[in-house]
Amino acid sequence: MGCINRGWEVVSRKISSCLIKKKGIENRDNSIAERWEILSGKNNWEGLLDPLDYDLRRYLIHYGQMPQAICDSFNNEKVSKYRGTSRYSKKNLFTRVGLDKNPYEITKYVYAASSKTEETKESNWIGFVAVATDEGKVALGRRDILIAWRGTKTKSEMNEDDKWSLVQPSKIFGENRDNILVHKGFYSVYTCLNEASNFNRTTSARDQRQVLEEIKRLLKQYSKEEISISVTGQSMGSSLGTLCAIDIVVNEINKEFPVTAFLFSSPRVGEANFKKAYRNLKNLHILRITNVPDPIPKLMERGQVEGCAITEWRAYEDVGFELVIDTTKSEYLKKDIFSHFLEVYLHGIAGTHGVEGEFKLEINRDIALVNKQGDFLKEEYGVPSAWWIEKNKGMVQQEDGSWILIDHET
Amino acid sequence: MGCINRGWEVVSRKISSCLIKKKGIENRDNSIAERWEILSGKNNWEGLLDPLDYDLRRYLIHYGQMPQAICDSFNNEKVSKYRGTSRYSKKNLFTRVGLDKNPYEITKYVYAASSKTEETKESNWIGFVAVATDEGKVALGRRDILIAWRGTKTKSEMNEDDKWSLVQPSKIFGENRDNILVHKGFYSVYTCLNEASNFNRTTSARDQRQVLEEIKRLLKQYSKEEISISVTGQSMGSSLGTLCAIDIVVNEINKEFPVTAFLFSSPRVGEANFKKAYRNLKNLHILRITNVPDPIPKLMERGQVEGCAITEWRAYEDVGFELVIDTTKSEYLKKDIFSHFLEVYLHGIAGTHGVEGEFKLEINRDIALVNKQGDFLKEEYGVPSAWWIEKNKGMVQQEDGSWILIDHET
Repeated sequence: MGCINRGWEVVSRKISSCLIKKKGIENRDNSIAERWEILSGKNNWEGLLDPLDYDLRRYLIHYGQMPQAICDSFNNEKVSKYRGTSRYSKKNLFTRVGLDKNPYEITKYVYAASSKTEETKESNWIGFVAVATDEGKVALGRRDILIAWRGTKTKSEMNEDDKWSLVQPSKIFGENRDNILVHKGFYSVYTCLNEASNFNRTTSARDQRQVLEEIKRLLKQYSKEEISISVTGQSMGSSLGTLCAIDIVVNEINKEFPVTAFLFSSPRVGEANFKKAYRNLKNLHILRITNVPDPIPKLMERGQVEGCAITEWRAYEDVGFELVIDTTKSEYLKKDIFSHFLEVYLHGIAGTHGVEGEFKLEINRDIALVNKQGDFLKEEYGVPSAWWIEKNKGMVQQEDGSWILIDHET
Repeated sequence: MGCINRGWEVVSRKISSCLIKKKGIENRDNSIAERWEILSGKNNWEGLLDPLDYDLRRYLIHYGQMPQAICDSFNNEKVSKYRGTSRYSKKNLFTRVGLDKNPYEITKYVYAASSKTEETKESNWIGFVAVATDEGKVALGRRDILIAWRGTKTKSEMNEDDKWSLVQPSKIFGENRDNILVHKGFYSVYTCLNEASNFNRTTSARDQRQVLEEIKRLLKQYSKEEISISVTGQSMGSSLGTLCAIDIVVNEINKEFPVTAFLFSSPRVGEANFKKAYRNLKNLHILRITNVPDPIPKLMERGQVEGCAITEWRAYEDVGFELVIDTTKSEYLKKDIFSHFLEVYLHGIAGTHGVEGEFKLEINRDIALVNKQGDFLKEEYGVPSAWWIEKNKGMVQQEDGSWILIDHET
């Protein structure tokens, strides 16, 4: 392609050229490596949220890119035999989604089952476990173990999202004498098996050979180093991340290493006893990022308790600290968009100056990214809508002229 | 991409492996080079249409691929500054659309204006003029000059399609003593200027510096060789092709070289006097290919005559010979699809055995191509719908991590 419409691009995007743009997390001044403990919530983000600390912006975008990477790689092509898996291999994922400088190595892809019904005997790629590389450790200041969970992608997951009733999370809390209750659907995705599925016959997303086991393995491998465990997710993935982070601490998987969850556009997960249990946990810090026009974080108000002889309702409660952004203030975005998408959130984090302040990009995150999966950016910026797509959806011409679907990298 | 789902592909497509598949026109046995005159209608396709001659199948697919190539390269991205042009250069077009072995060199891209209204001050890439390369001349048996016209792509063109009234085509027929009348919209696209447009300020698709001039130039360049002129088009492009082929012969541009038009899914273009005029022309052969379930070829029944003091209507008439196919007989296609798309036609030509006969592929044209711009193939064949698309719609990541739209090759 010889002719680049760079002029159009530069003029129309109107982004200040003095801002520095990089693919991954950048740490020229070593501030993230030095400040990681407070950025990860050691002081409960006191004084960092309003005004939003510059390093924390970078840090949140860094973690937010992880569930976005899963979203970008998820194969949802209905005629593909690889539907529900990653298009890209663990080794190549970050490069394929444009994150060349990522400081992690993915060690495990995680699959979650939908509860078994006639319609939804399936399991799908839901996230990954990764660990900081040696180079990444220098940038991040410690050996970070990362667990990332994506948002809803399939019909069967939507079905789970809609199960608002409250159940006992006994796999996390054991006997559960405090009568803790959580969202039935999220708990199911996190813990259930599905004998009919490809990936979750004998192991749920949570248990053996998946998340918890992999964290244990990595902790053992790097047992002599300073370690943190970071959990990140978006939408349904935030709810899974909440369960996962709490699970890790309740069951002392972390061995007193700090656990932090960065949760983007998170629905509520449990009720008052759940919140109380979270508050009693040590070494756990949760930060939810919530966008004012996004309806999902406030959607669940109360749920019916399952297994009660009489009908009983409980109110859902938020857990953790909250960073509120408001992307309706961004001059770059169209009006009345569905502000739940993760790229919209990351744009919001790059430019928020509090709910009262004006929107101004402090991190030069490319505004083109906002349109990857939607039609959110004003047309004057010259970026196609929903542009994130494989060439010919993975159809590749062969030597003999025929075309075949190649949409799975191993 | 390591893992190819070839097994799935081969099993599910169920195509006989004994058929030979090639990218372009193939001429192992020299039969096209030897038979091109009769394939181009010298004997009015007598004895070739039912049953459909094997070489004529290949020949029609060869010509049908030309307007399809324009369709595949047309940039219709609404936020692009290159909307309405070709994504690919003249030099690279055939390779980019998967036709490596094409026997032509494109010498001219042709642009057509929409008639000037407040809404539609635009002109768009509508086709090309090409000429057989030296190698192509061997395969085709003569120096073929090719003019290809695409089908409707833009709103302004739809607006022209809907102008069913009948006008005097004086630019083609001069004084027009026979009171010949043609479809107002098609004639307008073929001949009109638009001062507000980028490409048609001083030249219409038809005239100077575009189609007719380019044909004259090529005839002069190859004046000592055996030459044919082939016109091909689909839908609106068939109507433009009809006007163009007749124009070339009426105005003796062809200097007695044979002119043949292969027109796929053509709407009607003119009335009885137009048909009569066509019948009186020498060295002109028109073959229309019509698919039984396609409503477009039969859409126009009559039009009101423009410029009459009293209201006068005339009936539209078909011109040329007709090959009728029926893709409802294909076991590969879904039911009740919009059978007007060119790839559906080319599939039909590959497998037709007459309106009464069963459908069976004689040419192994890859059935995956049927789904390039639509959702027509049964899902069991494992081919995504509407799969013909640029990677990331032309968004390309730069060294600094940002993304820009690169969607025009010069």
